[in-house]
Amino acid sequence: MKTYLFTLEDKVRDYECDLQGVVNNANYQHYMEHARHEFLEYLGENFGAMHEQGIDAFVARVDIQYKHSLRSGDRYRSCLNVYKKGVKLVFEQDIYRLSDMTLAAKGTVESVVVQDGRLTRGEYFDGLLTRIEAKMQTEV
Amino acid sequence: MKTYLFTLEDKVRDYECDLQGVVNNANYQHYMEHARHEFLEYLGENFGAMHEQGIDAFVARVDIQYKHSLRSGDRYRSCLNVYKKGVKLVFEQDIYRLSDMTLAAKGTVESVVVQDGRLTRGEYFDGLLTRIEAKMQTEV
Amino acid sequence: MKTYLFTLEDKVRDYECDLQGVVNNANYQHYMEHARHEFLEYLGENFGAMHEQGIDAFVARVDIQYKHSLRSGDRYRSCLNVYKKGVKLVFEQDIYRLSDMTLAAKGTVESVVVQDGRLTRGEYFDGLLTRIEAKMQTEV
Amino acid sequence: MKTYLFTLEDKVRDYECDLQGVVNNANYQHYMEHARHEFLEYLGENFGAMHEQGIDAFVARVDIQYKHSLRSGDRYRSCLNVYKKGVKLVFEQDIYRLSDMTLAAKGTVESVVVQDGRLTRGEYFDGLLTRIEAKMQTEV
Repeated sequence: MKTYLFTLEDKVRDYECDLQGVVNNANYQHYMEHARHEFLEYLGENFGAMHEQGIDAFVARVDIQYKHSLRSGDRYRSCLNVYKKGVKLVFEQDIYRLSDMTLAAKGTVESVVVQDGRLTRGEYFDGLLTRIEAKMQTEV
Repeated sequence: MKTYLFTLEDKVRDYECDLQGVVNNANYQHYMEHARHEFLEYLGENFGAMHEQGIDAFVARVDIQYKHSLRSGDRYRSCLNVYKKGVKLVFEQDIYRLSDMTLAAKGTVESVVVQDGRLTRGEYFDGLLTRIEAKMQTEV
Repeated sequence: MKTYLFTLEDKVRDYECDLQGVVNNANYQHYMEHARHEFLEYLGENFGAMHEQGIDAFVARVDIQYKHSLRSGDRYRSCLNVYKKGVKLVFEQDIYRLSDMTLAAKGTVESVVVQDGRLTRGEYFDGLLTRIEAKMQTEV
Repeated sequence: MKTYLFTLEDKVRDYECDLQGVVNNANYQHYMEHARHEFLEYLGENFGAMHEQGIDAFVARVDIQYKHSLRSGDRYRSCLNVYKKGVKLVFEQDIYRLSDMTLAAKGTVESVVVQDGRLTRGEYFDGLLTRIEAKMQTEV
């Protein structure tokens, strides 16, 4: 089992399934967004509050591979790691079906920070990464 | 056939259907919201621009009766009438399956206007109603 | 504080908020659906499995009053009671902001059961209500 | 301007915008899904009917680059090209803001066909491609 910086468990909501009887593809992107935002909250931030301060993290690119469909009744674990690449923060995100830890979907999500309408060099992300390191040292 | 102030035609999108193979109930609320906002645009307003000016229309109550499920491939007509009731603007909204004009859902949606955080007496709606009357006279 | 047959706690997901910065109205209907389906699971049923057996619970009517908007970062408690009325099962559903138990939305949702394409007299619901009573006696 | 096999015009629905005031990332995936399914209908197929016949097209991978955010009031053109690659059908999908044809998002979506639970070699897609060629010759 890989190790992750942050994980979140949740359960499929039936309205997330489409007429094929499985979770609609776009909802995995919702699951991944929610995991990133909960990760932010874990670091003491809130996405809505950031927006009100003029700081917006935008997704520049997502690449998601769908491996195994989640269904009604399934619980899942949503996991992430993160690193800096140029001005971007890159999230590696895996979603597992909880019952047997089958990989349901894996994604790479690149995000940038826009402040007061201008693309930044990602200074905001540098602050986050410092906080992550501090957290990890505390927890060891 | 009833007469309506405003109608809009569209088609079911497959991701709007849930595992029962029919449009999920919450999506009819989306259909009705979109019809109201397009009605606003027809009157020269835009919901996003209103928000940026500090004027927010909020839904206070919805009452929706589901009569006949829409499915993949169905086209529908979304229709509305509107009247003022106290501080509220009340929308009567019907959605028909276009192929045979079967009533799919009918709703009553009550909305109020909040300006800079305060509930208004609906002066904004009075302005809208005046514009509606002007439009109707022009079109006769 | 009212008593409820079933409650569920969860947190606003940021994508559920719209451009007004609050949870979009249709999402409360999603929250209420999810609470009903989790209540079913608590009683030993699963909505997807029911569908595959030809038993479909459909919403016939929803009446939702919006009292106080939920926002990014808010946790909420979704609560329900239920009773039979003719062929219908009626859910009384309240959603509270968890931080101060402010009522965010209250709804009445009427559902019917269709089996193999035909509206039933709600015999399926009678079985559910018997199980609810049995559960309550066990828990006392 | 690139040429495309199929295009579709539509308008942003306000509930598709999130608290940042722009269309939420996952909704571009919805836009792209809807364009693919409308393309199927143009070729005489229907996604829901396919599912009932035991033929399911599943997305195996999406790669989406977000270039420019769509907002309330924006109209957009959703465009696609398609080619076969092994057992997969690959869609190249671009979404433009209609007012000035700014590229809003570009995606590559790979799909496979599962029939009665088994991954196929994409014979279904071969049939589609033949129909596309026939259509193009007719239209010339």
